[in-house]
Amino acid sequence: MNVTFSFQILAGNGSARRGEIKTQRGIIRTPAFMPVGTAATVKSMFPDSVHAAGTDIVLANTYHLMLRPGAERIARLGGLHHFMHWPYPILTDSGGYQVMSLSALRKIDDKGVTFRSHLDGMLFELTPERAIEIQNLLGADIVMQLDECIKLPAPDSEVERAMKLSLHWAQRSKRAFEGATPGRALFGIVQGGTSPTLRKQSARELISMDFSGYAIGGLAVGEPQDVMLATIDETVPELPINKPRYLMGVGEPDDLLAAVESGIDMFDCVLPTRAGRHALAYTRLGKVNLKNAHHAEDPRPLDEQSQCPAARDYSRAYLHHLVKANEMLGAMLLTWANIAYYQELMEGIRVAISTGRLPEFAAATRENWKKEPR
Amino acid sequence: MNVTFSFQILAGNGSARRGEIKTQRGIIRTPAFMPVGTAATVKSMFPDSVHAAGTDIVLANTYHLMLRPGAERIARLGGLHHFMHWPYPILTDSGGYQVMSLSALRKIDDKGVTFRSHLDGMLFELTPERAIEIQNLLGADIVMQLDECIKLPAPDSEVERAMKLSLHWAQRSKRAFEGATPGRALFGIVQGGTSPTLRKQSARELISMDFSGYAIGGLAVGEPQDVMLATIDETVPELPINKPRYLMGVGEPDDLLAAVESGIDMFDCVLPTRAGRHALAYTRLGKVNLKNAHHAEDPRPLDEQSQCPAARDYSRAYLHHLVKANEMLGAMLLTWANIAYYQELMEGIRVAISTGRLPEFAAATRENWKKEPR
Repeated sequence: MNVTFSFQILAGNGSARRGEIKTQRGIIRTPAFMPVGTAATVKSMFPDSVHAAGTDIVLANTYHLMLRPGAERIARLGGLHHFMHWPYPILTDSGGYQVMSLSALRKIDDKGVTFRSHLDGMLFELTPERAIEIQNLLGADIVMQLDECIKLPAPDSEVERAMKLSLHWAQRSKRAFEGATPGRALFGIVQGGTSPTLRKQSARELISMDFSGYAIGGLAVGEPQDVMLATIDETVPELPINKPRYLMGVGEPDDLLAAVESGIDMFDCVLPTRAGRHALAYTRLGKVNLKNAHHAEDPRPLDEQSQCPAARDYSRAYLHHLVKANEMLGAMLLTWANIAYYQELMEGIRVAISTGRLPEFAAATRENWKKEPR
Repeated sequence: MNVTFSFQILAGNGSARRGEIKTQRGIIRTPAFMPVGTAATVKSMFPDSVHAAGTDIVLANTYHLMLRPGAERIARLGGLHHFMHWPYPILTDSGGYQVMSLSALRKIDDKGVTFRSHLDGMLFELTPERAIEIQNLLGADIVMQLDECIKLPAPDSEVERAMKLSLHWAQRSKRAFEGATPGRALFGIVQGGTSPTLRKQSARELISMDFSGYAIGGLAVGEPQDVMLATIDETVPELPINKPRYLMGVGEPDDLLAAVESGIDMFDCVLPTRAGRHALAYTRLGKVNLKNAHHAEDPRPLDEQSQCPAARDYSRAYLHHLVKANEMLGAMLLTWANIAYYQELMEGIRVAISTGRLPEFAAATRENWKKEPR
């Protein structure tokens, strides 16, 4: 295919936008939620079900894939899309976040980061250039710059140092990405902790480098939701209107809804898949913990109005039984139901923006979330 | 529905038979392979995929279900078919085999067996009458008598004692099953170890009680394949031609093929599902161990000619990766591929019997199984 990467805004409602990203692998309807396919699989789901649930794009992790099975191996096998049987768009992160959170003995300097694999202790090096090379080998449609993501709270000086290093790495990532095929895109990542000043500085310098999209990184790392939303509200106005805005690693359904209202277009998060493996279901009417004994004889499905077979066709009693018996089908059904609910929410959001009724949709949705007994 | 349980032989080829069992829940094409759904789930598979792979009937375990979630609870929830979202025929075993192999502190006497649950140590009693009651509560289409299944080798006197106890329990099971709905059936179980004399005695006495089908129990418990097949060959001629013959707990694909040639109509076995969770694939061309490093860059699927997406659409390299990374999708795909292969084999067998070409089919199938390098 010979499609130029592009982003088009189709409708707006307050700060929220309904849009479409075109890639060589297909269209991404925004606001979009990207399920996480860490090791080239959205855990416990068949790719067909991921797509049928309304997913246009998945995220895969550079860190995990560079360690196992290796980016060069995936390239020899025809690229990540073919490898994981997912012909639709893929965004890969740069590996920076996982290096910080998972690896041992990491050493960061201006050049990049060296670390030992959490799997076997082998030594690896990740530079901005190598992060781009890996993502090119994987064949990602949306590529992320290498950044340094620190834990919050942190001293201002440390936040500023990491933000400036990330800007330096952004510049090198940009150079390394030059000449990539036109249907693919590189995003820069705004850092700066919860400091409006640092966020603005980061955003402005990134914009001067001209990326195809801008991510807000370094949030949802322990700060309260209102602090996260305030930081988003400080940052978004700095970003160009005509480029996708991606809030990394977020979040709960109510985080997504609030961030869309603040003008965010893209999200990824492990929550719906991880919760599915831990007996927690996200539904239209709130969260349901299937471990709870009061579900043992409950004949109701998670949500009889759902279009998803997992949420519609199996009783809570059965799901409770599967969870208690530690049966794989429990995780399979709950993950499927959760991804389907997240995508149902995103579709509801998109329709609401298109029809100018996002405030009403948001209010009704928030009311509904209170309906499941806690 | 108001369907009478029935068995019709549609074609024969040597001792092998192609037939159809009619139940209130649908038709079972024989020879039939029944995947095992121990705890009301065929492990790591969606029921839709189990059916789409060519499965007419699954087996569920009375022992596991009586302990958790309990037969009365499943009955209150509308029965096992509804509970596990499987509207097709179900055969339940009587619980005897698992009591012997899994429970602690069991005590067998003429009345029945008392044992402690392997889950929580709670005390349970299983009598022939209670085993029937449980299976009726579950709503099984084919119900098995309680029997005592001993480990082989065992002294003749012990084999004879257990066989005679099983006959006594068969009689009581028959009485307890009287008045069950007409679309359902009770099978007797031939015991007697590897002794032709005891097997014949067991078969004759069971036949005098007039069951809807006859199982051969107590095989595939450690004896060599030729001993198992010899015992089948001694037993089958004792069984009525016009009733289904069910070889319990068997087995490998080559066991199934050989037993069909000896006149067996039904099988159940955990092998394809258990192997799928342990990185072993059964294919048309033999067994494939996906743990093996030589699959790491193998772009070929398990079997490009398979109708099953799991066997056709994913490379061995990807399956190897999933297994190494301990990803649930590995077990999901391999189990699916295995059940699909078992059902493809059974369909091949049924067509071969119908066309009078079972010997040629069997020879070609056995040649094919040698083709995967070990």
